Amino acid sequence: MQFEIDRIVRTALQEDIGLGDVTTMAIVAQDSTAYAELVAREDFVLAGLDVAAAVFHQLDPEIDFEKIFVDGQKVNKGEVLAWIRGSALMLLQAERVALNLLQRMSGIASLTARFVDAVQGTDAIIVDTRKTVPGLRALDKYAVRAGGGRNHRIGLFDGVLIKENHIAAAGGINEAIFRAREKIPHTLKIEIETRNLDEVQQAVNAGADIIMLDNMANNDMARAVELIGGRALTEASGGVSLERVREIAETGVNIISVGALTHSVVAADISMLFK
Amino acid sequence: MQFEIDRIVRTALQEDIGLGDVTTMAIVAQDSTAYAELVAREDFVLAGLDVAAAVFHQLDPEIDFEKIFVDGQKVNKGEVLAWIRGSALMLLQAERVALNLLQRMSGIASLTARFVDAVQGTDAIIVDTRKTVPGLRALDKYAVRAGGGRNHRIGLFDGVLIKENHIAAAGGINEAIFRAREKIPHTLKIEIETRNLDEVQQAVNAGADIIMLDNMANNDMARAVELIGGRALTEASGGVSLERVREIAETGVNIISVGALTHSVVAADISMLFK
Amino acid sequence: MQFEIDRIVRTALQEDIGLGDVTTMAIVAQDSTAYAELVAREDFVLAGLDVAAAVFHQLDPEIDFEKIFVDGQKVNKGEVLAWIRGSALMLLQAERVALNLLQRMSGIASLTARFVDAVQGTDAIIVDTRKTVPGLRALDKYAVRAGGGRNHRIGLFDGVLIKENHIAAAGGINEAIFRAREKIPHTLKIEIETRNLDEVQQAVNAGADIIMLDNMANNDMARAVELIGGRALTEASGGVSLERVREIAETGVNIISVGALTHSVVAADISMLFK
Amino acid sequence: MQFEIDRIVRTALQEDIGLGDVTTMAIVAQDSTAYAELVAREDFVLAGLDVAAAVFHQLDPEIDFEKIFVDGQKVNKGEVLAWIRGSALMLLQAERVALNLLQRMSGIASLTARFVDAVQGTDAIIVDTRKTVPGLRALDKYAVRAGGGRNHRIGLFDGVLIKENHIAAAGGINEAIFRAREKIPHTLKIEIETRNLDEVQQAVNAGADIIMLDNMANNDMARAVELIGGRALTEASGGVSLERVREIAETGVNIISVGALTHSVVAADISMLFK
Amino acid sequence: MQFEIDRIVRTALQEDIGLGDVTTMAIVAQDSTAYAELVAREDFVLAGLDVAAAVFHQLDPEIDFEKIFVDGQKVNKGEVLAWIRGSALMLLQAERVALNLLQRMSGIASLTARFVDAVQGTDAIIVDTRKTVPGLRALDKYAVRAGGGRNHRIGLFDGVLIKENHIAAAGGINEAIFRAREKIPHTLKIEIETRNLDEVQQAVNAGADIIMLDNMANNDMARAVELIGGRALTEASGGVSLERVREIAETGVNIISVGALTHSVVAADISMLFK
Amino acid sequence: MQFEIDRIVRTALQEDIGLGDVTTMAIVAQDSTAYAELVAREDFVLAGLDVAAAVFHQLDPEIDFEKIFVDGQKVNKGEVLAWIRGSALMLLQAERVALNLLQRMSGIASLTARFVDAVQGTDAIIVDTRKTVPGLRALDKYAVRAGGGRNHRIGLFDGVLIKENHIAAAGGINEAIFRAREKIPHTLKIEIETRNLDEVQQAVNAGADIIMLDNMANNDMARAVELIGGRALTEASGGVSLERVREIAETGVNIISVGALTHSVVAADISMLFK
Repeated sequence: MQFEIDRIVRTALQEDIGLGDVTTMAIVAQDSTAYAELVAREDFVLAGLDVAAAVFHQLDPEIDFEKIFVDGQKVNKGEVLAWIRGSALMLLQAERVALNLLQRMSGIASLTARFVDAVQGTDAIIVDTRKTVPGLRALDKYAVRAGGGRNHRIGLFDGVLIKENHIAAAGGINEAIFRAREKIPHTLKIEIETRNLDEVQQAVNAGADIIMLDNMANNDMARAVELIGGRALTEASGGVSLERVREIAETGVNIISVGALTHSVVAADISMLFK
Repeated sequence: MQFEIDRIVRTALQEDIGLGDVTTMAIVAQDSTAYAELVAREDFVLAGLDVAAAVFHQLDPEIDFEKIFVDGQKVNKGEVLAWIRGSALMLLQAERVALNLLQRMSGIASLTARFVDAVQGTDAIIVDTRKTVPGLRALDKYAVRAGGGRNHRIGLFDGVLIKENHIAAAGGINEAIFRAREKIPHTLKIEIETRNLDEVQQAVNAGADIIMLDNMANNDMARAVELIGGRALTEASGGVSLERVREIAETGVNIISVGALTHSVVAADISMLFK
Repeated sequence: MQFEIDRIVRTALQEDIGLGDVTTMAIVAQDSTAYAELVAREDFVLAGLDVAAAVFHQLDPEIDFEKIFVDGQKVNKGEVLAWIRGSALMLLQAERVALNLLQRMSGIASLTARFVDAVQGTDAIIVDTRKTVPGLRALDKYAVRAGGGRNHRIGLFDGVLIKENHIAAAGGINEAIFRAREKIPHTLKIEIETRNLDEVQQAVNAGADIIMLDNMANNDMARAVELIGGRALTEASGGVSLERVREIAETGVNIISVGALTHSVVAADISMLFK
Repeated sequence: MQFEIDRIVRTALQEDIGLGDVTTMAIVAQDSTAYAELVAREDFVLAGLDVAAAVFHQLDPEIDFEKIFVDGQKVNKGEVLAWIRGSALMLLQAERVALNLLQRMSGIASLTARFVDAVQGTDAIIVDTRKTVPGLRALDKYAVRAGGGRNHRIGLFDGVLIKENHIAAAGGINEAIFRAREKIPHTLKIEIETRNLDEVQQAVNAGADIIMLDNMANNDMARAVELIGGRALTEASGGVSLERVREIAETGVNIISVGALTHSVVAADISMLFK
Repeated sequence: MQFEIDRIVRTALQEDIGLGDVTTMAIVAQDSTAYAELVAREDFVLAGLDVAAAVFHQLDPEIDFEKIFVDGQKVNKGEVLAWIRGSALMLLQAERVALNLLQRMSGIASLTARFVDAVQGTDAIIVDTRKTVPGLRALDKYAVRAGGGRNHRIGLFDGVLIKENHIAAAGGINEAIFRAREKIPHTLKIEIETRNLDEVQQAVNAGADIIMLDNMANNDMARAVELIGGRALTEASGGVSLERVREIAETGVNIISVGALTHSVVAADISMLFK
Repeated sequence: MQFEIDRIVRTALQEDIGLGDVTTMAIVAQDSTAYAELVAREDFVLAGLDVAAAVFHQLDPEIDFEKIFVDGQKVNKGEVLAWIRGSALMLLQAERVALNLLQRMSGIASLTARFVDAVQGTDAIIVDTRKTVPGLRALDKYAVRAGGGRNHRIGLFDGVLIKENHIAAAGGINEAIFRAREKIPHTLKIEIETRNLDEVQQAVNAGADIIMLDNMANNDMARAVELIGGRALTEASGGVSLERVREIAETGVNIISVGALTHSVVAADISMLFK
């Protein structure tokens, strides 16, 4: 993932700094040093501290960045997350990019943790989707893991998910699964989307490895789980809110996928305070 | 901005598709065509339709993408935003990336429009900040404009904003503004952050072009506006919510900057329906 | 895969042409046109004709490239594969790169076809490995498919293969599979390498989805297949030659992976003849 | 060549690892270290050990890679080529890419060495062609040198080779050489392809610096060498096999170019053993 | 600016070295070291010494580059600018690129210094234009600063300059300025080009922040300065030569922009002497 | 060279335009079209018109660019070089970059033509050096050809030039030439730098293909030419001015290399006039 972090950080720094921070270059002496702290301004689950460090280090390898917490930990309002010491010019130029990344990632981890907590005690796991911010998928998915969630497939290349349109194109659930099995690497499972119990039954018969229960009512999901009887993994999907997630988990599904984890993120409130 | 859209779209497609959509390649025939519509599933202000088109066209220039609305328009739940016709393989592979971009951009435009509506009738303009998603700043700032907002500086390179740490480094407001004026291109205005009326007075005296009133109470902002008396532009910043923005505007400030426009975006609900 | 072909072709053209073909630029008139044919000089299975076309078109979109065969077909010595017409300067500059790609890909497809033919009538499929030429994996794996083979995982990111060193690191087969199941996306199967029947038994017990039989004697493989009894897929690996592949297939394994398909390629003999 | 190695290694690592080795990340502890050896499993001429080191170091500069042999040396089956110590995660992720490069390069060097040995005692040198794997030309040509061969031109930009089609375009050998001499940098020699003694005579008359004898019978080559009488260098080309190369050398040609050195490579057998 | 220097240096080194310096690689031993000095062969103002150092360090971080002068200093013929010690192979390969950059940048700084000296004692500042060498703008503009000049806007994105064609498109000076004020970030000033006193008056009335006096006679410029009376900054532009610049400055304009600083550069004479 | 032009033009446009021309976007209507002419404002030799066209076309393929002259032609003050019609937004954004490239290239061609004219009637050819602007070498060298000059080697990779430091490293002229001949591709000639007649004699004896006469007096050059007697090409180098070049040519040297052609360019005066 290191190359991807390098790319993201470089793109972000170039986007923000361009040929230079005109304010800082005009005002701050070349050789002045600064000391700053990253401070939590609310409670949240931390994610992205190494990425924030990478922002400072890509701009200036000499900057000293000392982590107090590690990703995945819960931090409380007022706690210091990291100490940063180095060239004042560089700290001021890196600040915004580092915060933008850290705040988004911690926002994702925190929301994920709330979903994970909500299903505690059931067998369901919380997974993400491909509804991530373009260009940041690696970080979005990492943040989900930091929050205690699990990852669904990374992209279209590393997992099979047969949707309604694929089924229509193939002429039926059975035929779609058959075609997939003939072509895909044998290392991938076959997941298929179903909308009702009839489709669930067809998917089981066709030998699907994972059956997605798409936008079903809770009691339909419970019946689907029963019908499947362990012959395939089950994944609940569609309209999963914090309010409803526990009820869904209690239907017995194995996996609950939540688009909101990454498509509607509230940034965690974090400041960089210069001392 | 075309080069930047090209870069963003390419990065997003590579991230999602990699060496290919294993599901679609296995199931859908090479030569099958499809017709789909982008449909609003709630009311919102549209932004990003050209970017969505670019996603389809970068993958396959042959795809026919017909816009029904243009960016900046309000659309209602159920309305069709665009018609798309072309290779089924390509439509299925482009779908998620196009939606991820379009939903985020429309989410930004919609929130911006609510802020703009809230200050209607006052002289204040709503502007964004640099709290954008790394790598997508060009699109985030475009979406703010589509929603009726205005842009603050794009990055550190095209605007001067003297903050607390710059003032400390220079040894005072007067010295900081003096240094900036000695060095920066004469085409840029000088903006400075102030926290109280005393600092506002110093900034006026030093000849600041724009005075940011940072995290001030409404009545302090009103007094600052009076004190400045048109000798500089005024910008309210910090903790600006939809609830409070009208009161702020009524203090007489010229500009209100709102970080939440881009740092905590709720994706607009949009679907791509295959016919 | 289009982006990957673009990248490979661009890299190859820049590598070969640099700032220009000094010979051709000095001798051939700017406006002269040429007509050429790609001709088979031996029998082989074709792969890479679209890639060859991409070489000419990236250099000059005006070149007319007409395919007579399509990838996957068997061609005989003397047959014309494609007609090419356009700027003589461009044809001469693209020739070597197009041939280098086409010859390698057809070489892979041809060897694959021989392995596939050798196991005809058994249930075994022939798959490739990650022993590809760095930078060309997408093309190498495509050529295997053109030759009638199937693909193993593309890289380390889209399939799980637990090897000896992973088992050692985890402290045993059972623990390694347990750890994988706790962390990996639920869309991936778990494959594990075994060296003897005892390890095969452990892998079955631990619930492996695919069991690799690494460098086993044929009769051991037959016993392993029996022991597994359909509870997991079986993959033969290691030292698979054309001579031995049928015997391996007859042990009843599901999958036979062959490194030589891509690591020791003999280029198919193809010429570009100018008329 | 350092920039080119950097590019090749980076491309190869991204191609194989993508966003991460799912197997290793799930099973191997972040802080575990490993020790491994690169071991020859057959006799061959070594090439690419520095490139292999670059693979490990680009992924993790902390890895300790100690070379026991250097490129160009003959190694025997069972000998250890290098010791590698560092993060187990990194060693496992770099292994395949390092081996793919090292095995191909050593395969090229070994085949080259056999050709060089075959002409020992004659005045002929063995050179490569442009029939290299796209994207790897720098490494392919380096490996030829490691095997004792010499390089022909790197690409179309750094050497003049007038072929049949150039001659046809110019209207004759004399005119083609004249045009080249008028335009090309004075630092380049002019080489021209000939198919029979008549063309050889024309090339000599026109003042060619190097005369390629293309697909000629051995006795024709001998007569051509005599005819040229040292007024130009002579290069034998076309259908050069190990069996025939010595006879060719004994015709008195200066240079023998061999496409097979790089277009049909058998990977040397090398393992990475973890201790 | 570090990323931009990295890009420029990398491009330049790849352009000059390609796959390697064939001369040096053939003749100079791998392990030989060299010591060299950069020496001024005429008097000039130094700019680019850090960039020259970056050339050597990007090729080989081990090279020891010791600066004797710093950018902005006047150096005399014969003075040593820097000592360089390291691998002879690397020094020889980096030499030309380092000199090409250093000589151009010092040429710019020296010419700038002559303009700055010429207006000494007046209030005018000397600024550059966008007439820079494509790809080197960051360095060209840096060199102007090293010579005592100031920078005009970097590009089209960070400053507003309304020219004749914009005015025509808008339908007049007043309308053009109005449109700009409605759309541009509030952090930018508005500059407008005028050709006569009538246009100057319109620009003042419309509230322009900066008024460019384009190709005006000196006495017209003096009258324009008087007419404007401090209500806007004034910039003289067009046909500014060393001979004429002082007279222009004495008209009272604030800013004098000089295209020749960067579009017609005479390289400073600098050698690299090996000891 | 097309890829190189693409790269240069893209870099230049991004450098100048960034995320957009704030002035033009604010003032000029999206759908307005414009017509403009490129006009010579002095006499010069044209070079770069295709590159200028590429600037407009890369920004907007719809722009109509009609050439009136072709590169290499002499144009007179007042003549129109090309007509350009298309989106006003795009024409205004491309203008500066197109002119910067066209003016530099025409400046180089014009100076080259003056040198070429000065040696008319002698056998000497005028060639360039590697003293080009970093990143623009392909265009600089093209412009030299457009002006009637010839190219020296493009970079360190496509020509051998043994300089003083190489000779010192090898231990003498003879040894240096010997080592080069042992290693370099046989397609390259060997050029060596000499400072006096003694060295010239050594170079002849060692079999150099080209002998550079570095900074020699005219009569020494004449004696060197005589001494060499056609056994090698001769190249005059160092301190070649327009005043002195004819005398040098009359010494009988074959080649005269002139650094000033590209290192100290005066931009040709060209305007883009909107109608």
